Amino acid sequence: MLKKKLSHLAIASCLVAPMMLGAGDIIHDAEYSILESQHAEKWAKDDKIVDDKLANFKKKNGGKSPNIIYILVDDLSFGEMGIPELNYVRGSQTPNINKLSDEGLSFMRMYTEPSCTPSRVAMMTGRHPVRNGLGEVKATVAGAGLAKSEVTIAEILSKVGYNTVHIGKWHMGDIAESYPHTQGFDYASFPVHQQVLLGLMTKESDKTHALKGWHASSGNDPFALDAKFKPNGLVYNLEGYKGQEAKEVDFKAGEEWTQKHYDDMNDKYQQQAMEHLGKLAKQDKPFFLQYWPLIPLDFTHTPGAELQMSNGGSGVESLFKLDKWVGQIVDEVDRLGIAENTMIVLMADNGRMRQYDSILGFSGTMYRGGKVDTTEGAVRVNAFARWPGMIEKDKLAGDMIHISDIYTTFARIAGGTEYIPRDRIIDGLDQSALFLNGEGNGRRDYVFIYSGDTLKGIVKQKFKLELPAPGAPGVAAKMYDLQRDPREEAPSIEISLWAGSVFQDLTQRHLMQMQKYPNAKVGKDTPYSGISNLRPESKKMVADFVSWSK
Amino acid sequence: MLKKKLSHLAIASCLVAPMMLGAGDIIHDAEYSILESQHAEKWAKDDKIVDDKLANFKKKNGGKSPNIIYILVDDLSFGEMGIPELNYVRGSQTPNINKLSDEGLSFMRMYTEPSCTPSRVAMMTGRHPVRNGLGEVKATVAGAGLAKSEVTIAEILSKVGYNTVHIGKWHMGDIAESYPHTQGFDYASFPVHQQVLLGLMTKESDKTHALKGWHASSGNDPFALDAKFKPNGLVYNLEGYKGQEAKEVDFKAGEEWTQKHYDDMNDKYQQQAMEHLGKLAKQDKPFFLQYWPLIPLDFTHTPGAELQMSNGGSGVESLFKLDKWVGQIVDEVDRLGIAENTMIVLMADNGRMRQYDSILGFSGTMYRGGKVDTTEGAVRVNAFARWPGMIEKDKLAGDMIHISDIYTTFARIAGGTEYIPRDRIIDGLDQSALFLNGEGNGRRDYVFIYSGDTLKGIVKQKFKLELPAPGAPGVAAKMYDLQRDPREEAPSIEISLWAGSVFQDLTQRHLMQMQKYPNAKVGKDTPYSGISNLRPESKKMVADFVSWSK
Repeated sequence: MLKKKLSHLAIASCLVAPMMLGAGDIIHDAEYSILESQHAEKWAKDDKIVDDKLANFKKKNGGKSPNIIYILVDDLSFGEMGIPELNYVRGSQTPNINKLSDEGLSFMRMYTEPSCTPSRVAMMTGRHPVRNGLGEVKATVAGAGLAKSEVTIAEILSKVGYNTVHIGKWHMGDIAESYPHTQGFDYASFPVHQQVLLGLMTKESDKTHALKGWHASSGNDPFALDAKFKPNGLVYNLEGYKGQEAKEVDFKAGEEWTQKHYDDMNDKYQQQAMEHLGKLAKQDKPFFLQYWPLIPLDFTHTPGAELQMSNGGSGVESLFKLDKWVGQIVDEVDRLGIAENTMIVLMADNGRMRQYDSILGFSGTMYRGGKVDTTEGAVRVNAFARWPGMIEKDKLAGDMIHISDIYTTFARIAGGTEYIPRDRIIDGLDQSALFLNGEGNGRRDYVFIYSGDTLKGIVKQKFKLELPAPGAPGVAAKMYDLQRDPREEAPSIEISLWAGSVFQDLTQRHLMQMQKYPNAKVGKDTPYSGISNLRPESKKMVADFVSWSK
Repeated sequence: MLKKKLSHLAIASCLVAPMMLGAGDIIHDAEYSILESQHAEKWAKDDKIVDDKLANFKKKNGGKSPNIIYILVDDLSFGEMGIPELNYVRGSQTPNINKLSDEGLSFMRMYTEPSCTPSRVAMMTGRHPVRNGLGEVKATVAGAGLAKSEVTIAEILSKVGYNTVHIGKWHMGDIAESYPHTQGFDYASFPVHQQVLLGLMTKESDKTHALKGWHASSGNDPFALDAKFKPNGLVYNLEGYKGQEAKEVDFKAGEEWTQKHYDDMNDKYQQQAMEHLGKLAKQDKPFFLQYWPLIPLDFTHTPGAELQMSNGGSGVESLFKLDKWVGQIVDEVDRLGIAENTMIVLMADNGRMRQYDSILGFSGTMYRGGKVDTTEGAVRVNAFARWPGMIEKDKLAGDMIHISDIYTTFARIAGGTEYIPRDRIIDGLDQSALFLNGEGNGRRDYVFIYSGDTLKGIVKQKFKLELPAPGAPGVAAKMYDLQRDPREEAPSIEISLWAGSVFQDLTQRHLMQMQKYPNAKVGKDTPYSGISNLRPESKKMVADFVSWSK
């Protein structure tokens, strides 16, 4: 498709300077060229079908591209939503998401990065976060984040006339250039940090032993000399409009953050998502509403709440709440009469946080491991796409897809492919044919799994290579058949013997291309820059950070 | 229901001697009385509904009870059939069984015994096999089996006018009194033994290392003195009619058993199941067709066969074949126009044989372990019931049910409850209300898990006790929350602290009732008794066995 599209562009613009937007092929990973060379003909035909479908849609939709709602939920392993039978295994219920699954396409092999920030970066930039320095997550103030030089999906969609709103978790940096409203969104309401700092660092958590030793009330150590050892002065809720500084909201100087603040924050995001949905639907322009709830990762039960699920874990209860919230949004889309011109995509960012299983109520199932691991349990999630009339309902797709593909696919569906940068590697592949033409039309049979900056695993078709630790001999690499052994418990020498060297070649090509297009740098700045109303305690925290970092 | 039914009987038969059939309550395990005492009123109402439904059905069906087809497949873990999403996890396909699931009720908590013989005994007798000495399986000639004194479901259904046919695996003994046609079936076609002896003890298996060291061609040990060490002279295919001796078929004296014999045997059973279905459907009487395929447990690929599934394991290939066979049977039921008066129940007998995972292509998933273990992976299976117009379609049921309940439930639905014996413990509960009134109408919240004669685990609601080894202190017992930890990997002291003593009481009640109604004895006789045409080599084998057993 890209080649074809390029030739169209070339004809239309033969007199224009060569550095124009959209000129040249998108630079994908080396592995993609190998697939493209084998499928160019079929893919060109499929792209024609996709182009026709999108053109017809636009025609019927008054010349407008579809609205896109992208809901990314936090830390939920494959199998926990959308599959009624597995609700029974878990003692949970996700009726609304199960219904959403029935109304669209369910992806059976959606890969993500192994944790929150990396997955979000991959979706926003179409790039593995190793390429822009965001493979690792720092929880407290960092003075780092998504660099201005990255071109986000929100920037692309803005360019092609979308209204863009971000609500909920962001977690891609605590500096001005990395905030959502400076990365392409017209409006954003988001916390700077993640749930440990938001949902756990409270007096209540220390009292119930959900967190230990943080709050001053948890016991005084008379020999503790450093009164600044425990973070104090964190910024919580931010809101921002494109081109303006962010403002902290819902919190006063000197106030103490509590479980109630956190619960209210969650409820507010849902309410804002609903409100903005209603407003956006009334505009002339198409919209991109990105809603990233902080749940179902939920370290504590809301105090006094009656448990609803027989499982009773805080994460499972939270999943039930999330399911209701998703139901509200989907119902509202239907009620607003925009179902047929709105694509809804729902997925998780990575597997469960297994270290907290006994409280969350989750545990390993078909896939082993969770967040920050590199087993399938870390990087395989449920994902669903609904777009009545355009995406066939009640279908499953076994094709491989990666969260970075969302970037390239959304860009294509919104008509913004030309704004995808051509000067860097884009890992995200255009999976429009899979979305619109259905199962068997995917364009990926490989995924690289990074943990921070380290390549830890490679999936190719049904085979998975777990790379040996640096310095260990190649024979220490483990090879798995993911169908026979989805839990990666029995490495197979019978596969290694033929596939070992093939995977070596593949890795080599990947690394060589990385040398050709070197990784970019993470954005750096003073923490909490770009916030107009920093509280005194936050200013103090920043001053300490700056002085200690010298 | 039973109490109510009893009182009706009492009125109708007050002048008859008290030892009549059906007199007195069915004797269930102590745990059941506890549930009955809490739900008697609701259950009486539900039973009225069930009675009315069955009476209406019979009226519309010319006074006849429904046909029953019971398909029990061999060694298949929960999740491997009927759930399309999990087909993708495995790299397998079960489209026909998935469709069957959509057309009826899927049981989410069907428990079995941990291995083949015990599960089959539980279904046939409504009793945990510990109660009749069949908790352990002997593979080669045993001179033992299901005792004549047991009252099988086939005997009960015969009493109420059913034509009864058994096709396929039996595996409940190699003596005359234990064969299916002496245990209630009008006709039976079955192998005496199980798949190791049928599908593995061949020259081909030894050549492909699927089995090692059995066949003479696998290498001669010049110091081996005992030429009778390896079994020789096994009986394979039997056929028998009620009241007659069995006949060995499809095999000649002096012939060597091969993979082809085994594959032909499997194909024959499918063909016979289809043929008998056609014949039975034409009779005036309702029928009970019991078809127990030997697959998907399948130790070897049919030589030269092209693999169909991306997984490629012999068990997964075999599952695909099984799925087609099930499809043929269901289609035939529809074609014959008997769908609405035929209940089809399909289930597995226990979890996969995990020791053979690398060849079969299966592995652990949501539940840990397999056949002969006592974890959920051993005793939780998929089960489906289809009966258009009587069982609601496309439903799931989270209620607990045990394979022994099939006995009591089939008896009720066929109108044969009065023939269930009243002089022994019947573990099987009447789950007709669950079948016909749907989810939430189950009558069980406990299951005892025996391995041979040893009680190894108890499930009560979502809690599971793994009993300590004999002699170990009670505190060594492990307690699991099956919803939070379906794989039984993290025993919970927080549950043990309250539930430990409650489970102790429960166990005590169970054992006390076992003392009150002592376990029966296994049937004993000369191996291969009741076969009219024993081959010379089989006669020799029996003679050796008899002489060595003195």
